[in-house]
Order: sequence, then structure tokens, then C-alpha cells
Amino acid sequence: MKMFIQRNSPLPLHQQIYHSIRDQIVSGLLTDGDQLPSIRQLAQQLQVSPMTVVQAYRLLEKENWIVQVQGKGSFVRTQEPSEETQPSPFAWQKKISNNLIGARYPSFYHWPVEYPMADSVIDPELLPNLFIEQELIKLLSQDPRSLSRYSEIQGDFHLRSAISKYLQKLSIHTSPEEILITNGTQQAIDLVTRTFLQPGDLVVTEAPTYAAALDLFKSQGVTLLSVPVDEEGMKISNLMRIFSQKTPKLIYTIPSFQNPSGVTMSRKRRQQLIELVQNTTTLILEDDPWSELYFEKKPPEPLFSMDTQGHVIYIKGLSKILAPSCRIGILLARGPIFHQLLTMKGNVDLGNPLLTQKAILSIIQTERMQRHLEKLRIALQLRRDYLIYCLQVYMPAGVKWHKPLGGLNLWVELPEKVNALTITEQAKEQSVSVLPGTICYPYEEGGDRFLRLTFASLNEKKIEEAIRRLGVIIYKALNAPSAFANA
Amino acid sequence: MKMFIQRNSPLPLHQQIYHSIRDQIVSGLLTDGDQLPSIRQLAQQLQVSPMTVVQAYRLLEKENWIVQVQGKGSFVRTQEPSEETQPSPFAWQKKISNNLIGARYPSFYHWPVEYPMADSVIDPELLPNLFIEQELIKLLSQDPRSLSRYSEIQGDFHLRSAISKYLQKLSIHTSPEEILITNGTQQAIDLVTRTFLQPGDLVVTEAPTYAAALDLFKSQGVTLLSVPVDEEGMKISNLMRIFSQKTPKLIYTIPSFQNPSGVTMSRKRRQQLIELVQNTTTLILEDDPWSELYFEKKPPEPLFSMDTQGHVIYIKGLSKILAPSCRIGILLARGPIFHQLLTMKGNVDLGNPLLTQKAILSIIQTERMQRHLEKLRIALQLRRDYLIYCLQVYMPAGVKWHKPLGGLNLWVELPEKVNALTITEQAKEQSVSVLPGTICYPYEEGGDRFLRLTFASLNEKKIEEAIRRLGVIIYKALNAPSAFANA
Repeated sequence: MKMFIQRNSPLPLHQQIYHSIRDQIVSGLLTDGDQLPSIRQLAQQLQVSPMTVVQAYRLLEKENWIVQVQGKGSFVRTQEPSEETQPSPFAWQKKISNNLIGARYPSFYHWPVEYPMADSVIDPELLPNLFIEQELIKLLSQDPRSLSRYSEIQGDFHLRSAISKYLQKLSIHTSPEEILITNGTQQAIDLVTRTFLQPGDLVVTEAPTYAAALDLFKSQGVTLLSVPVDEEGMKISNLMRIFSQKTPKLIYTIPSFQNPSGVTMSRKRRQQLIELVQNTTTLILEDDPWSELYFEKKPPEPLFSMDTQGHVIYIKGLSKILAPSCRIGILLARGPIFHQLLTMKGNVDLGNPLLTQKAILSIIQTERMQRHLEKLRIALQLRRDYLIYCLQVYMPAGVKWHKPLGGLNLWVELPEKVNALTITEQAKEQSVSVLPGTICYPYEEGGDRFLRLTFASLNEKKIEEAIRRLGVIIYKALNAPSAFANA
Repeated sequence: MKMFIQRNSPLPLHQQIYHSIRDQIVSGLLTDGDQLPSIRQLAQQLQVSPMTVVQAYRLLEKENWIVQVQGKGSFVRTQEPSEETQPSPFAWQKKISNNLIGARYPSFYHWPVEYPMADSVIDPELLPNLFIEQELIKLLSQDPRSLSRYSEIQGDFHLRSAISKYLQKLSIHTSPEEILITNGTQQAIDLVTRTFLQPGDLVVTEAPTYAAALDLFKSQGVTLLSVPVDEEGMKISNLMRIFSQKTPKLIYTIPSFQNPSGVTMSRKRRQQLIELVQNTTTLILEDDPWSELYFEKKPPEPLFSMDTQGHVIYIKGLSKILAPSCRIGILLARGPIFHQLLTMKGNVDLGNPLLTQKAILSIIQTERMQRHLEKLRIALQLRRDYLIYCLQVYMPAGVKWHKPLGGLNLWVELPEKVNALTITEQAKEQSVSVLPGTICYPYEEGGDRFLRLTFASLNEKKIEEAIRRLGVIIYKALNAPSAFANA
């Protein structure tokens, strides 16, 4: 059993073991009836004292994740015991060692509920479906053969050219040669992880941060440290303290309208960050999911543009704001590392499909793109304001939030004693999905007091109903009655 | 510098070091002027004697890959020295350690030549572009919103349902729940590699085999052994000898119209293979790129269908025979390992694009698919026959081949003293691409006597011109005149 255990973590070892095993159960990698390693085995494997494992197993048993059977060992007990009594012919497969440590993000991904507020997704009403559809039909009618062509591993040259022009509007001056097309941002993070990260490397993230990136970094066995964000973004003073002890291999940051907190890193902090890594071998992975979606003023220029030495790898999702069904991300890098990332892309899938690249090409090439973004900014700002209005109306005192100046999400702080995971589960029963802050921190430290809500996926009527339902649940958690319980 | 070095390999260690460094240069990971580790450093890192490194460096110097400068060290010298004299601001990046060992396959991938015979690609003339285009236009017109939807991580349920029905024709009885949609077969191999393979694990492949799979297995640091194929496929007796010493973690096989040799594993061997792994923990990765494309009779049923214990993971490319621009592969597995592979898919990219899945859905659902395959089989058989006719006419004595009974490729054996890599380079100058057998063996052992030619990508006229050009080159390599040199 592979585990994510770190000796320099603020979390006690027994709690780390507890989290690791719980993550595997939640991810479905350990299932009902699976036997856990004996206390002695696991203590030996992880080089911890047997008492540490005993404490972890007790904690798991207390929360009903496992049962310990005298003389037999410890077994996983999932919430809904399966009725199957027949032994499975595939049970032997459990003996095959694997490289998985459990992934927390997919457990919350795209729940099929009536009011989805967990995923950073834009309401299709606000997307240029018709324009893209018509352009794609035009392309296919003129050139059906395009269905038979492969893309270059690096990505279609025409799309890369169009993107390099588009990026100028974001203060990024680049060329098609520095752009790699990826299967969404997720693959871009994965390519960086796989190309450069090695067990024991130090990786620094913001806290909170994008949960799926944490899953990837953990799976590579790195040492993970996090730096809190305030109104100006990542606290560079904390980062300096880390540098004074050890040089990180990678810093992962989302400087503009940070996911999930919504805050934007100030220009000064950006400059400090770039200065900090000069003359080190640290790479910065700059994730820019939605800096175009500002409501008041443009965020400061990206780190990638401030960097002249090739420390910054810039990644961006493109299809989210256009046509999510195309799943297209980009990665920008300069110098030898670009070729290394390209080699890895060849290894892992030999390149993106061409059809999806062609599908978004025409809108990116035209002025239509800027008009679409202008409309989108206005629409999203209205929805953000409406979400805040609903929170003011339907939430009990003690629920707080930070007003984001762009992006898709609002970060909500719950009153003390209200647990984010519990609220998430109860909301699901009411057909509302929310993202628990728990999974946005490496060790859940304090994250159970936060929820991420998107204001982009639902119209105003639906936002109101979702927040009404959520308010009722949070009132109940505080043992207080909501005035809107039976609306 | 990461290297692929194995103590139990038939190849002497100094040659393995030579190959590893050469692969990195060919892959562009090491470039002009890069300094290699000192002899002492590398000897220490690899735990070999300094003389072994000296021998490797001498071999590299002899072939002009590197230069050794007295008192300074050894430096990469690429074929075309760059004219840049300005030191690059990104040179420091070379100090960042990475996980790449070099990939041989992408160096030969999709060369932009007039006569491409290197890639297993089907001539667009033979693909149902028009039908797929019309169905896609219909879908987009009826439901432009489909551009805004995400796919499940596992893949679109409707596509998985249609595929499970389609697979019945290939004697595979499965359900949508056992199918995972991947970004081409390449990603399917990668998911298996990443989920299950660990450094030191034993992986067995056929020799020769699919070059890009070798790249992936090597990059995971496994121990690689290969088993030759004869007219009945993988030699099971050799495999048994391996099992008597150590149980492999994975066996990678392409049983039907093997890539690149074209041979098909007999039913008897398939049964023996399945029997061999029973009651072991060995997984079989069955790659079935084109078993539908048989010219005389259907190949025996897949290993996946003979296996009742869940040892076989079956993977298949689907877009190659329909619409390569969609890049869709599938992976089938039963038991807990399926969920593990699905978890890895979530980690690496959160799922395929939906648009490309919808694009091939309608043809797979209809009878049209079978009609398309019937026509394709006939067309490909004619081209195979024509390729063989051209080889008979244009090739010197001593060039041999095995007549494939299906698939897209023909495996050509060159006369002694004719080197595949040299021929490949010279053919490129004549705008003909061929795949050198060299990269289809883990250590190139004997592979430099083979070429893989596809008969699927060109029409008869182009096949003839390509083979005429290739014939002239091979005649020249034998110091013999071709009668067709100036056709």
C-alpha cells in the first residue's frame, strides 16, 4: 500500500496514516472487506513505531472506516456494506502493488445534482455554442478530410499561432514554438509533475489551492509545503522562510482570482516572487484559469511575462470559457525544459485530437473572442452579485465570504463547529453540490471550515434556490431555525 | 541524468550506457554543447567501473555524438552544430533533474514526406469521413449545447454502450462499466504503466514490438525482457523459462497481426498464455489495434475473452479505422484493477473531450460500421498485394518479408550489411518515410536488419513510386545498380 507520509509535516504521523487510508477508501481503491496490513508490517514499511499505527487504526475504527477483528486483523468497512457474499474471482488482484495513493478531487467531480455549485463550470447559456457550431460545420463541410488528420504532438500549428496572438491581450508575448497543447489544464499539471518531480523534491503550493493539483503532487511522493494567501495573494515572507532552509523544486501558484480563495496576487508580490527564484533552480508553475474574467480591472501581468530567465511555466485552460466539450489546455515554457515537456507529452498520448483544436480555432482567431469575453464578464459579475445577495439573505450570522473581483468562485467561511464535509453531504441530499474546503489543503488543516461555491454555472433563479437550501442546512447545523426552511 | 541500465540484460553495460546517451541526444533532450557527467560521477551513479563509462564515451566519440576535451570533460556534439554563440539565458535549466530517459518513437513520428510509409495510418480515401461529418453536423445542429458539456472521467456512457455492443462482433462480451475511454492507445498503455509498474518490476514484451510501448516501460525503470515471435506468435516456451525464474508483473502482447511483424498468435498459444498466468499475479496487457482488419479469416478470439480471472487488460484504438482526428482508445479490465486505472485517468486528465466521443458514436451504433469494415478489408488486402508485387519488382535479392494476413504493416528483412537506420535516413531524403526495426527492440538487438512499411496510407501509384525509390537506395547500399534508378 503506497502512502503519503511526511516527517516534516505539521500533522502528527498517526493522523497522516489515518488520512492516507481514509483517502484510499473514499477513492474506492480500498473496498469493503479489504484487509489492511498488520500493525507490525505497516510500522516496518513506514519506519514508524507500532504505536503510531495503532493510533491511526483506532481513529479509523472510531469513525467506522475499518473494523479490527481479534486474531484476524483489520478490515475496511465501507458505509454501505455490499450484499455480495460470493467471493469475487478477481479478489487476487488486490495483491498487485500499485502506485496510487488515492485522489480526493474526483470524489467530488461533477455530481449529477439539480444545483451544481461545486464545479468551476460556466453556464452553457453564456457560451458561444452557436458560433462555434456554425464554424465547425463550415470547416467540416469544406474539408471532411480534416477528420482523418493527426495533430502534431505539440498541437496544431494554426491553433498555436492563433493562441500566441490571443495571449498578447493578456500581456504575454510568445510564439507558436513555445506553446504546447494539452488535454485540459489537468494534463498540463501532470506533464510538469511527471517530467520534473521526484520523490523527496520540495513543492510549495498556496493554501488553499486547487485540489486536483495536490492529488498529483502527492502521488509523485514529493514533500509538500503550503503558504497561506491573504488579500495580496501568496505570503511571500513565508515563502522566503522556506527558501532560507531548502530550495523548492517547484512553486505552484494561481496568481489571478485564485482557486479557490478568489484573491489576486498584487504586482509587488509577483515581482518579489520572480526575484526570489532568480539565480535558483526553482521552477514556478503559474496556473491561469481565468484572468480574462475580471469584473473591475485587469489583474497585474502574469509571472510568465515578468520572468526573463525561464523559471515560469505558464498553463491555462482554454475550452472552459468557450466549449468545455473540447478540453483544451495550453502550456508555455522557454528553454530546454520546453522540449522536455514536449517529449513527455509524446510519451503519454502522442498529442491531442485535432478535431477539438480545429473546433475552437476560428473563434480564437476573430474579434468575436473579445466580444464574447466582454459579455461574459458582465454576466458573471451579475451572478456574483446575486450570489452575495442570496448569501446575505439566506445565511445565518457567522457565515463569511471574500468578494472575488473575477473568476468563477466564491470562498465561503463557515461558522465554528460547522463541518464542510458534513454540509457537503447534506447539500447533496438536497441536490446541491458544493466543494468542501477540506480537499483544498494538503492535510485538510482548517479547510473543513470552508466551502467553494461557483456563481458561474447557474442562473439567478437557481442560485437563489441552491443558497436557500444550503442556508437551511447550515442553520440546522447550528441548531438554529431558518426562516426559509419551507420556502 | 536518468538512464535505462539493466544488469541482467544481454547487452554489455558500456553499450547500454552508449544507447542511453545516444537516445537522449536523438530525442533532443541533450543538445549541442551540453556537458556529460564526468567519468567518475557517472560510474558512481550507475555503480559500474570507470572503465565501462570510458568505453561508452569512446563509442559515442567514435560516432561523433560527443567530443572529449582534455581537462574539460565530454560534450554533446549534434549533427548540425548551432550557429548561436550567445550563451542562452535558459542554460541553467539543464541543472534541473528530470525523469526523462529519451523516447525513440517520436523521432520517427509523422515525418512530413511525400510518401509516408512509416506510420500505421489509413489513407483518408478509405475512411468514412463524409458519413461521420454529416452525423456530427446533425448532432451539432440539433444540440449545440453538447459543445458545453463535459464527459464523465470514464468516458461518455452512450459511447461506452455502443462500444460494448460493437465488441461482441470481436467475441468480447463486456459492459459499459468495464470500459474506459482513453486518448488513443498510447494513453491506455501509459495508464497501465503508471498505475502498476514500479522500478525493478519485470515486464515481458514480444520482440519485435510497438516502439512507443518500449519507451514507456523503460521510462518507468522496469526490468525489460523480450520473447521472440514466430509464425504462431510469441514463443510461449521462452516465456515459460522466464516464469521459472521470476514472475513477471506484466506481459505486453499484440496477438493479432502483431505490430510490427504482422504475425498472429495461434489459438493454442493464446490458451497456453492464459494458462501460464493462472494463479500468478501477472497481468497481461493485450493490445488489439486492428483485429477487425483480417484478409482471410478472423483471428482467434482475444485473450481477454479466454480469461476468467481478470488477468487481461484489453486495449484498442478506435479512431484509427474511423476518424484519426478524434484519437479515441479504449481500455477494458475486470475487478478492482479497473477502478485503479480509472482513478489514474482522473489524475492525469479528468477524462477525454466529449466532442470527439460524440463524433464517432453514431457510426459505431449503426450497421454502417460493418459495411465500412468489409470495404476496408478488401481495399487493404489489395494494397498489401500491390506492395508485395512492388517489392518483388523493385527490391534486390536478399530482401525478404512475411505476408501479413491482416493489419496495416509489412515487416521487411534487409540483406546482411544493410543498416535500417541508414536506409531510413536516405529514404527521408527521397521523401519516403519508413520505420526502422531498430526501435522495435529494447536494445536494438538485430532490429537494424528490419523495416516496417505500411501499405495502408498510400494508393497503389504512390506505393509503387515509394518502393521504387526505396529499392534504388537498398541496391546502392549493396553496391549494386538498380534497373529502376532513373524511372
